[in-house]
Parts: sequence; structure tokens; C-alpha cells
Amino acid sequence: MTGPVFPHQVGKLLDSQPEIFVMDTVTVNLGSRSYPIRIGTGLLAQVGGLLREQGLRPGPAALVTDSVVGPLYRKEVNDSLCQADFTPIVIEIPPGEEHKNLAWLSFVYDKLVAGGLERRSPLIALGGGVVGDLTGFAAATFQRGVPFVQIPTTLLAQVDASVGGKTAIDHPAGKNLIGAFYQPRLVVIDVDTLRTLPEREFRAGVAEVIKYGVILSPELFALLEQRREAVLGLDPVLLADIIKTCCQLKARVVEEDETEGDYRAILNFGHTLGHAIENATGYTKYLHGEAVAIGMAFAARLSQRRGLCSEALGARLSRLLKNVGLPCTVPADLTKAHLIAGMATDKKMAEGRVKFVCVEDLGKTRFEYLDVREIGAYL
Amino acid sequence: MTGPVFPHQVGKLLDSQPEIFVMDTVTVNLGSRSYPIRIGTGLLAQVGGLLREQGLRPGPAALVTDSVVGPLYRKEVNDSLCQADFTPIVIEIPPGEEHKNLAWLSFVYDKLVAGGLERRSPLIALGGGVVGDLTGFAAATFQRGVPFVQIPTTLLAQVDASVGGKTAIDHPAGKNLIGAFYQPRLVVIDVDTLRTLPEREFRAGVAEVIKYGVILSPELFALLEQRREAVLGLDPVLLADIIKTCCQLKARVVEEDETEGDYRAILNFGHTLGHAIENATGYTKYLHGEAVAIGMAFAARLSQRRGLCSEALGARLSRLLKNVGLPCTVPADLTKAHLIAGMATDKKMAEGRVKFVCVEDLGKTRFEYLDVREIGAYL
Repeated sequence: MTGPVFPHQVGKLLDSQPEIFVMDTVTVNLGSRSYPIRIGTGLLAQVGGLLREQGLRPGPAALVTDSVVGPLYRKEVNDSLCQADFTPIVIEIPPGEEHKNLAWLSFVYDKLVAGGLERRSPLIALGGGVVGDLTGFAAATFQRGVPFVQIPTTLLAQVDASVGGKTAIDHPAGKNLIGAFYQPRLVVIDVDTLRTLPEREFRAGVAEVIKYGVILSPELFALLEQRREAVLGLDPVLLADIIKTCCQLKARVVEEDETEGDYRAILNFGHTLGHAIENATGYTKYLHGEAVAIGMAFAARLSQRRGLCSEALGARLSRLLKNVGLPCTVPADLTKAHLIAGMATDKKMAEGRVKFVCVEDLGKTRFEYLDVREIGAYL
Repeated sequence: MTGPVFPHQVGKLLDSQPEIFVMDTVTVNLGSRSYPIRIGTGLLAQVGGLLREQGLRPGPAALVTDSVVGPLYRKEVNDSLCQADFTPIVIEIPPGEEHKNLAWLSFVYDKLVAGGLERRSPLIALGGGVVGDLTGFAAATFQRGVPFVQIPTTLLAQVDASVGGKTAIDHPAGKNLIGAFYQPRLVVIDVDTLRTLPEREFRAGVAEVIKYGVILSPELFALLEQRREAVLGLDPVLLADIIKTCCQLKARVVEEDETEGDYRAILNFGHTLGHAIENATGYTKYLHGEAVAIGMAFAARLSQRRGLCSEALGARLSRLLKNVGLPCTVPADLTKAHLIAGMATDKKMAEGRVKFVCVEDLGKTRFEYLDVREIGAYL
């Protein structure tokens, strides 16, 4: 882990930068689809320049946000875009997963057409996972693909959606059933936006950070244990550093397996049961990260009972989850039958079996191909 | 040009093959997304085996067709799939461009979900361009991409949509405004299906064949001049050979420029005015190939008047078009203003200019970046 970084030189357009700021870059290497993730403070006011620096052409553009994030940040981003000679239209959708659907996608398409966007006009997503997923899918498919820029404003979206190129909308039959793999041209993560994120959402985002520690980095896990207070206190330099680490870790996985042939499924640690819990509770009771926290504790328990890891590892994970304020036990009111049914709809299912991510030690995982009833037996 | 080819050895699954048939293969080389195009006679009855040969896994599958092509061929294809241990659902959409939209795409998604299709379940398009485009886009986006198989049944779709990976639906504001580049895993072209194609549609398809001759192959152009009667008489061996040549020619272009960065725009020869004519007449008066025929004759005239090619070349092109029964003059009832407005909505527009494909000689083209009013002056 490195300390604070010096401002990156981004040229004349950024002359208006605040006096003290942090900016660091993670490059996601995917051949001709490679792109940078800029991570730091005070970046919203520099978005226009960052787009230009990335070779995106001035002129028509669209800024897609929702009616919660929009009022907080759209003006700052819009002004920055205008200063860099973009002429953005702003498209606002209602907040919440229930709007990540074909109807609102169609609404976005209509606005893009009405706004005269061309093939090279950038689509910019400003918001959390819903805005990012839906805007990304619109960018992947409008005119068969236009440049996509992501400005994730939740911790979950910053450490998860920034890398991987997964875009999607939901179908009544299941989440993310319709989508595309489509890489952004640029991701801008301004950690200042975390200050307006509800605390519960922030803690849920930390669950995904812990996940990276478990599956890929004992160092990150230890850092979270040691500096938990500073993380929850939103120390901007520490947060930028941690988010950078998460993006780097995920980038290494995605670079190896862009379209989830095999290895990428490692990122699914804690998600098999997590998704089933979300599904069984109608996506209302638990935030994604909370369900994943329960799923991770369960995955450690299952791993231990299958003789793959020590009991101490599970205890250490549960302790950290609890200290962050995350749940780690399966809610008593959810029946086994419900959870098994939920796991049976897993998109990662192959030939009736779930590719379950087990843990052997911090930074060491293995796949077990299990029948959902077999998994249920450990509940 | 080669003569008839001997049956390709496709193994045990094809033991039921008819005694006399033709099958040849063009491979489209796109790295990990490479795929074969099987071209011949009697292939519909062998589709199941061809899918298996391609590594597509038996089990759930979906066969998408329309209510014109379906009654003619869906049974034969369905039976072949079942024999090869696929369990296809059949999805039928109404025929015609007006159904290539978000509403019918949504209908297809619903059927796929209800049919229990998984990530590796193939989606098979049986029909012309509309069925192929819509099914291809569904395949590109359902579960972020499932295997796509094309069985084009019109000459236009066989020589055009088989190569290039363009999938799309229309938006009220324009054709193909929403789509994706997505390569099929297999294309099966059975020239026997051309026997049920309305003659006018067949002739319109020949326009695209002539286009390949003009832009890429003097030999193909000469063959069409010499063997026009046999082509129009649906000689199956000759047709298989010509379709193979077209697929090879287009494959070479697409291999060089998969996502239309630059060179691929050569395929747009005759399409700038062609699209404008279709647009100005509401996509009802002219078939696509007919509008392209007029557009090609115009492009030759424009090229000649700009000093790029001889008058003889344009005369030779117009003669062939006429002999095939295709139009080659701009309809008198279309005003210049209408056509210019139509060209102005060209998706290939960059910075207000159209990338117009001019011809210098058979097999030799060049791009001219022209203002639409400049083009209009040659009308």
C-alpha cells in the first residue's frame, strides 16, 4: 500500500484544480479496450478535462443520473463538462433497482435520440450501481456502442462496477438478466462523494472491500482490521488508497478472464447465498453488501466444515464483519427451502451445479461444484 | 471461382444426409470469435448436427422465426435439432421491419426466460434480416450474451448479415439505432430456401452481390454478367459458389475492421443514397436492394463526374443492374430536398460530413468526405 500521491499532471484544462487534492490512476489492461480509473478527491470539478484527456470529443454528450444523486452533484459535473466544450443533456431517472428495467432504458434511448447524440458522443453515468448498469447498457447498445464514462458515487459501485465491464438491466424474472460486457473509456472516482452516502450504504460497500481482502489480499484484510476506525471515519487519503487497491485487484482478475469463462467467478465469493438472501427477501430487507456479508461468513463456515480452512479464519472474518457493523448470520426467518430455491436460479449454474467459491486461507480460494441441496445442508 | 464441391465430412451425426448435396465452408477469422459459415443444399435437415459439431451443448435452445418463414421451414429445423438432443422452444414474431423493435425484443426475452434458457443455450435465427437482426441482438444481450446461430433464408441476409456481427433493432427515430456487434457461433446457409423467396426479393438480393463485385472483385462482377440467366434460374451449385465468394469477400473486410473504425465503410457503397431513398419513401416503396441499386448507379455517376472513373464503368454497372431487373435511376417523384434530408441522418456521419464511397474501377474504391448538399448537387 502506498501513501498519499502527488497530483497527476493533466494539463491546462485542469488549471482550476483545488489546491490540495489526491489523484491516482489504475489502468485496466484489456488490449484496445484498456482504460484508466482516476481515483482521488475534488475530481468532479475536473471531469470535463479528464474526458478530453482521454480523447473524447467535445460536443454532444449525455449525463445520466438519478433524482437523489442528481441534485447533489449534477451541476458541478455539468459545469466542468461545459468548460471543456461538451454540450451535455442531463437525463434523470428515479432512484432504485426497480427502475433498472426495459422501460427506463427505453426512456434513456428516447432522450439520446432527442438530444442528437452521435456515434462518438460520450454517455456519462453519475450515480450508484443502478445508474451505472443502466447507462452502461444504453452506451453498449445505442448506435451499437458509444463511449461510456462512469462516475460511481457509492463505495460499492466504486470498488465493484468500476472494473469488469458488466452492464445490465433487470427482467421481472431475475436481476441483470439482460445486459452486455462493455468497457468504459474512463472511470472517475471522487471519494468526496462518499460524504453524502448514507452510512448504512457505506458499511455495505465495505463488505465488498472485505471480500477482496479474503479472496486476493491478506494485506488489505489486515489493513481493514487495523484502520477500521479511519475507514468508517471517511479518511479521504486512506479511502482513495483502499479503493485503488480494490480496483487493482479486480482488474487483475478481469484482465485474466474478461467474460467470465472461469477464473473471474472467484469474485462471486459470498454471493451464492448473498443473492439467494436478497432474492428471498424481495431485495428490500438487506442491501447487497449486507447479504454478501452473511454469504461470506457462510462460505467460510462451509469451507471449514468441508475441511478446507481453519475455524480461526471464519472467526476472524466474522469479527471484522461485526466490527464494521455488518450482519454475519443467516436470518432465522428465512427457511432453508426458500434459500435453496433462490440459489437454484443462480446465473452461474452449469449443468445443475453451482460453482461455489470456497476459501482455504486469506488470498486463497477454490471452486467446489455443489448441488444446491448440498449447499443447503450447511445452512 | 471454383466449381461444385464435395460433401464436407461432418461425422456421424450427419449420417442421415441426402445422397447428393453440396456443402462448403467459409471461416470468418476473428480470433477467439472466429466461426464457420456452412453453405450448401439440404442443410436445414442437418442443422442439429452442425450445431453439435460446433461444440454447442444439447439441451435448451430457442428457434426464432417469423410467421412467413416459420410454416415453411421450422419443422425441418426443429426436427433436426431434436435429433441432435436439443430441446428447442419455437418463438414466432410477425414478419416485417415494423416489428424489429423494443416491444418484440421484449417479447423474445420473455419467451427465453419462460423457456428456461441458460447461459450456454443457443439462440437460432431462422429467417431474413429482421429475424436475424432482432434475434442476434437478443442473443448479444440475454444473460450478457448466449451462443447465436444464424440460418438466413433470403439472399440479402445470406450475403450480407452472415458476416459482420451487426445486430440491431429500430427506434422510431431511425433504423438500427439500437444494437450491438456480436458474432455468431455458426451460420448455416441452405440455398434451397431461396426457392420459396419471392422473385422480387431475390433480385433485390442480387444488388448486394453486384456490390461486392464492384467494390472488391472484378471476377465476381464478370461472372454475374456472364451467368446472369443461371443465377436468376436459381442454379443451386452456382448460387452456393457465389454466396461463398460474397461471404469470403465480406469476411476479409470485417476481419480487417471489425467494428467499423474505417475501412469497413467500403461496404456502404451505394448505401448513402440508398438509405435516403428508403427513408424518404417510408421503407415501403423500395426493397433495400432496389434502393441500393439506385444508390450504386448514382455513386458511379458521382465518381465519374468528379473525375475518378470512366463513363464506361457506370454504363456497365447500369446495364447489369437493368438486366437483373433492378432500378438504377433516382425516382422523379423524390425531391432533392427530401433526399438531402435523408442523407443528413446517416449514422456514418462524422463532423457533419458523409463518408461517401466512390468507385475508381471494378475492385477499387475511395472515400470522399462530402457535405450532403455537395452530394445533392449530383442528383
